[in-house]
Amino acid sequence: MADLASIEYRLAARPVGMPNDSHFARAIGSAPEPGPGKVRVRNLWLSVDPYMRGRMVDRESYVPPFEVGAVLEGGAVGEVVDSGDENFAPGDLVMSILGWREAFTASAKVLQKLPKGMVPPQAFLGVAGMPGMTAYFGLLKIGALRNGETVFVSAGAGAVGSIVAQIAKIKECKVIATAGSDDKCDFLRSIGVDHAINYKAFSDSRGLEKALRAAAPGGIDVYFENVGGMHLEAAIGAMRPFGRIAVCGMIAGYNATSAEPGPNNLVMMIPKRLRIEGFIVTDHMAEAPAFLADMTQWIGAGKITVKETVLDGIDQTPAAFLSLFSGDNTGKMLVRL
Amino acid sequence: MADLASIEYRLAARPVGMPNDSHFARAIGSAPEPGPGKVRVRNLWLSVDPYMRGRMVDRESYVPPFEVGAVLEGGAVGEVVDSGDENFAPGDLVMSILGWREAFTASAKVLQKLPKGMVPPQAFLGVAGMPGMTAYFGLLKIGALRNGETVFVSAGAGAVGSIVAQIAKIKECKVIATAGSDDKCDFLRSIGVDHAINYKAFSDSRGLEKALRAAAPGGIDVYFENVGGMHLEAAIGAMRPFGRIAVCGMIAGYNATSAEPGPNNLVMMIPKRLRIEGFIVTDHMAEAPAFLADMTQWIGAGKITVKETVLDGIDQTPAAFLSLFSGDNTGKMLVRL
Repeated sequence: MADLASIEYRLAARPVGMPNDSHFARAIGSAPEPGPGKVRVRNLWLSVDPYMRGRMVDRESYVPPFEVGAVLEGGAVGEVVDSGDENFAPGDLVMSILGWREAFTASAKVLQKLPKGMVPPQAFLGVAGMPGMTAYFGLLKIGALRNGETVFVSAGAGAVGSIVAQIAKIKECKVIATAGSDDKCDFLRSIGVDHAINYKAFSDSRGLEKALRAAAPGGIDVYFENVGGMHLEAAIGAMRPFGRIAVCGMIAGYNATSAEPGPNNLVMMIPKRLRIEGFIVTDHMAEAPAFLADMTQWIGAGKITVKETVLDGIDQTPAAFLSLFSGDNTGKMLVRL
Repeated sequence: MADLASIEYRLAARPVGMPNDSHFARAIGSAPEPGPGKVRVRNLWLSVDPYMRGRMVDRESYVPPFEVGAVLEGGAVGEVVDSGDENFAPGDLVMSILGWREAFTASAKVLQKLPKGMVPPQAFLGVAGMPGMTAYFGLLKIGALRNGETVFVSAGAGAVGSIVAQIAKIKECKVIATAGSDDKCDFLRSIGVDHAINYKAFSDSRGLEKALRAAAPGGIDVYFENVGGMHLEAAIGAMRPFGRIAVCGMIAGYNATSAEPGPNNLVMMIPKRLRIEGFIVTDHMAEAPAFLADMTQWIGAGKITVKETVLDGIDQTPAAFLSLFSGDNTGKMLVRL
């Protein structure tokens, strides 16, 4: 068997500020015939996620930065085409984090075999994968959500936010969510959000805080933070005593060229006894089975609506990634190969 | 028995920015003969505390604001002079929160009888009272301190900070503390602080963060926050993953006339999985016996050094309070009557 040619995208340069096409380089790689213990995979779906922006910066973090010149890593679901490992056979569905490439050959150890038929394959990159797990553990564990509380989620129409909103509804909560367009607010209402707020109506935190207070006169118990900036400031102002803020992301600042100031009302944490806690989903992997059991049951029962924005073809991958920062996606942003 | 005349200090006006003498009004009140269920008390010690600044502002909080024209409330230790209540007798030592007055007559229900001989009476306003309890629960419960960790406390030479530093040493921790003068840093070293830092050497958080990183190359596990501003920003930069920040106060902003921006590096909460939590000591009163048992044992064993700054005479009370914001006190600031 010959090597399999594979279009791939590499990091061409580290972006400062908003990334653009110049930061990505198209190249032709190859997936050789797999030797013993190796598996050749043809990708079906690629994931683009906001956290990848952080890995483009050369700084100390919980994962090493992407290397310039290397293929961009990220979640991908593919199909085994040839296998040199007894645990994998052609046709198997597998997950890798090997990223933006059409095909690859890799050690069987870096592949996770996926069940077939339970959910569509690409769901393992979204609702049944990392974004879904982020929503689940962030809301229930870090946010310590109790049934019937009032929840606010920013970027509510995003891959994580849309799941947060729906889990909160399953837990009989009142849910307030922000999004950046009226269409997205319509989507939020369609998945049960009680108060959908187009944050672009506000130029600073005061207007947003007023809208939050109107939606939750008794205050917010749990804020699921995806955005930062004026969202965090408004939320702190509208929190109820003993409220919890689960910090998943702060996308508003990911492309800033200088450090943006934080909320000017942090002192309210004291009289309100607020807890603000950052988290990373990979710390909670040991509890993944509980997540999968709940999530597949919810999906099966029609309690979770899965929304995806799909671009076709590997050459759309940089554009798919960049659109995360212009807010073009509703639900999970995916590239279909 | 005649009424007892009592000099008292009332709130004359709500300060905007740094308070001054014009915000306090001297008046002559009176403590009448106590009827049934009432007790007449002559105060011996008055407490001034930074949190009182917050009560001078007319805003919703966990305690109602001070009223203009009313005597300023605050912790006080006094001696019973006459009693109409069977639970109190002349000579008893009592604590009240009735504040800045020489004497008063009040319901026995608002008085707490204090044990004699265990610690000096004024200790119940400091190390054995609210500031000591704030240090204890903030560090051990909110900060979830484990033996041997690295602790940073700002305003380390203050009433609360100096107890935080010493409890952390009892728990075999490495302790870093900031203060605003070289004399205070000497005091910090005298109570066992490993790295005393005069923060006035730095004009922004970068210098302070560098000093913290030099003192704690492995990072800070628990930051006990009394100050805010550049202290919080520097601490976030120097925290270790899974670090905890117990937010007791943010005195740097108490006299600000406009809201000051928060730390520009809050996003680091995510990769570092930091928890930042505000607290109020009165929420932990149910556990006061555990605190008192530990604290009296530590004082008896010479493990806690009590430092006080004392001004004499009720007419010094406004000055004692104002000095909290210029940093004139080392340890607990008290007025002796």
